Amino acid sequence: MTITTRQQAPLGSGAGAFLADFHSMSTFGATAGGGVDRQAGTAEDGQTRNWFRGLAEGHGFEVRYDAVGNQFALLELVPGAPYIAMGSHLDSQPLGGRFDGAYGVLAAVHAAIRLQQRLAAGGSAPQFNVAVVNWFNEEGCRFKPSMMGSAVFTGKLSAEHVLETVDPRGTSVREALESIGTIGDFSLDLAAYLEIHIEQGRSLEDAGLTIGLVESTWGANKYEFTVHGEQAHTGATIIADRHDALLGASALVVAAREIADGFSTEEHAVITSCGEFTVYPNSPVVVASRVELLVDLRSTDAEVLAAADAELHRRIAAIQQSAAVRIEQGAQHVWGAKAYDKAGMSLAAECAADLGLSYGTVRTLAGHDSTNLKDLVPTIMLFVPSVEGISHNEKELTSDDDMLAGVDLLTELLGRVVEGAFVAVP
Amino acid sequence: MTITTRQQAPLGSGAGAFLADFHSMSTFGATAGGGVDRQAGTAEDGQTRNWFRGLAEGHGFEVRYDAVGNQFALLELVPGAPYIAMGSHLDSQPLGGRFDGAYGVLAAVHAAIRLQQRLAAGGSAPQFNVAVVNWFNEEGCRFKPSMMGSAVFTGKLSAEHVLETVDPRGTSVREALESIGTIGDFSLDLAAYLEIHIEQGRSLEDAGLTIGLVESTWGANKYEFTVHGEQAHTGATIIADRHDALLGASALVVAAREIADGFSTEEHAVITSCGEFTVYPNSPVVVASRVELLVDLRSTDAEVLAAADAELHRRIAAIQQSAAVRIEQGAQHVWGAKAYDKAGMSLAAECAADLGLSYGTVRTLAGHDSTNLKDLVPTIMLFVPSVEGISHNEKELTSDDDMLAGVDLLTELLGRVVEGAFVAVP
Repeated sequence: MTITTRQQAPLGSGAGAFLADFHSMSTFGATAGGGVDRQAGTAEDGQTRNWFRGLAEGHGFEVRYDAVGNQFALLELVPGAPYIAMGSHLDSQPLGGRFDGAYGVLAAVHAAIRLQQRLAAGGSAPQFNVAVVNWFNEEGCRFKPSMMGSAVFTGKLSAEHVLETVDPRGTSVREALESIGTIGDFSLDLAAYLEIHIEQGRSLEDAGLTIGLVESTWGANKYEFTVHGEQAHTGATIIADRHDALLGASALVVAAREIADGFSTEEHAVITSCGEFTVYPNSPVVVASRVELLVDLRSTDAEVLAAADAELHRRIAAIQQSAAVRIEQGAQHVWGAKAYDKAGMSLAAECAADLGLSYGTVRTLAGHDSTNLKDLVPTIMLFVPSVEGISHNEKELTSDDDMLAGVDLLTELLGRVVEGAFVAVP
Repeated sequence: MTITTRQQAPLGSGAGAFLADFHSMSTFGATAGGGVDRQAGTAEDGQTRNWFRGLAEGHGFEVRYDAVGNQFALLELVPGAPYIAMGSHLDSQPLGGRFDGAYGVLAAVHAAIRLQQRLAAGGSAPQFNVAVVNWFNEEGCRFKPSMMGSAVFTGKLSAEHVLETVDPRGTSVREALESIGTIGDFSLDLAAYLEIHIEQGRSLEDAGLTIGLVESTWGANKYEFTVHGEQAHTGATIIADRHDALLGASALVVAAREIADGFSTEEHAVITSCGEFTVYPNSPVVVASRVELLVDLRSTDAEVLAAADAELHRRIAAIQQSAAVRIEQGAQHVWGAKAYDKAGMSLAAECAADLGLSYGTVRTLAGHDSTNLKDLVPTIMLFVPSVEGISHNEKELTSDDDMLAGVDLLTELLGRVVEGAFVAVP
């Protein structure tokens, strides 16, 4: 077995270097309110990707792209061996926070750099290669759906379909990726996946824990609806003659919240959301002809989720009558409440204990790239705390200490996984 | 007294000429669905204005503009005398109908042309000059508020304020008017105002009448609200932590309809509408931080309107609590249920009877330029039927017969008003 590490000037890999890199990274797409705006495939996303490429290449990684713009920073330790990948995403919401996704990518590359240095200093023998992945378009705000790049990688969406997907201005994913020059034909031989992310909720902070070991995703039913009404004059059209798409859509938003309130139990919460809501033609004196909106239902329990979903569809039927509109259901994205690898959780818990970090198990309400990856390869998902649970917001915050603890844990975990403690070489 | 009519080739003024001109006019900003899109100050609005200028100048009118782009086609019959103005507006909603406003402007210029020909053929002696006015931005969809040009003319808004008003892209009214070259410094000495418009409701059609004599406007309270929430993650943020601006705004839309249903009586209807509703940042997985929306309440009765308005404000206070949002009230435009000139209605009724046209009195739910003008000078407002009451819609329709009946009536009415039957020369 040959250990290959490129000759290079030693670059920083300690706490100071991590925080300095985090600061540099946060300047790309920086917003006045202290957040970032780096929607997938935009110039700002491209700048962040190029910065990340430079960072990784400076440490001897080789950077490659696949057909849908997933960015892979490769550290070959064992020529021909499969890869242990770590990653998350560098794209953001409009007016998003600096930590969501970006923390996970930077933590991963720093963990890999530390491992590389440890091996160069004469550590134990690795059995795998290491890749750090920046998955394309995790956020899904410009191009739908979210977790797009990891969905293609795991075979849940076709690359063809994704490349033709357009944003609201008609620009396709293919055009966007070509415009920022981050598209290729690379494919990765993957053995296992590790991801660290900010919690985006408050359970770790409330419990006073530093590390969350994610045991499962919530089940989620995500729907696209179009409410069809009829354009009319807001003043001159009497109420009886109206087919007001805005009224129908608003009633649906209110119904979704009532379902969350009504179906949540002590044991199993239901969370509902309407995250996008677009009115046509949206003129001051025109009754809306059409509203497009997204409605999500999530629960930790499959039966509770099914009951809430049935109620949503009953309510939709009632709203069609009461508001004299037609509600059309479009695309849907549904996933069950699925467990992460139990052996992986145990391994991560051992590492955390050895490092003296407090930890507990959590569930993830949000989708992550690991939500897709765990269906393909053994996957370990870790959280660090979010102050007050604030996320998708410029005020999103994770303390320096918690970020650094996460890097320490990921480094320790990576070292053991690369030695074969999680998955065996085929 | 000198009657001045310019020497020119006789141009058509009969039924065929009117319908041909209406057809020509409808080609500007024509949409695939049979309507027009000529929002105020756009290139399409400019094209329509230039076409109208050519039509009027071809018949010997002089065309002038005032400081906020109101377009005046002047027919001087009695040098130095005040003007009888007729008019409406050539701008439209996005995907609006061909008839709204445009019919009234064309009917007015044809009535003036017919009067001119009658006078040239040796009719009775006029006491006033005649102006046909195309008021700037009646619709208010690009630049708010609606009825902008007539509001400045009648002193309800300042020209300075209006010229600095910007559209959603940041273009000011001044820039828009300069770009289409329809701005000037003209001012009109006005004695009385006549307007004919499509009803945009169905009461004339339901009653089988050709002409509506408008007896009053409805009272209207129009509000701009901003619902303030807090941006958060739609998946990861628990319900208890949410400040969902979209939920608050949706509850307000539903409340507005419930108020219309609850406060309408046999005698006095309440009509409520939400005509514009914009969500920020409007991303699929983000709880909305802010929604801007317009809410209108209208009623034929001041007390009923006041009661409905009080209920709206009670509901807003309740929604702030239940949705954990803050609702800020911005600009408001309020007008009472105001009567049109009774002598004017009687005169129009006489003319209709003499022409053998069926007529009845109606109230206007929609605002019109005459809503402003009637507060400045004696004003007569006429309606012709709208098929099925459909308006602000590409399918908006008024039959050729009804359009021509309206031109006949306006011609007859203008002739008598110019002879002094409505207002006296000062």
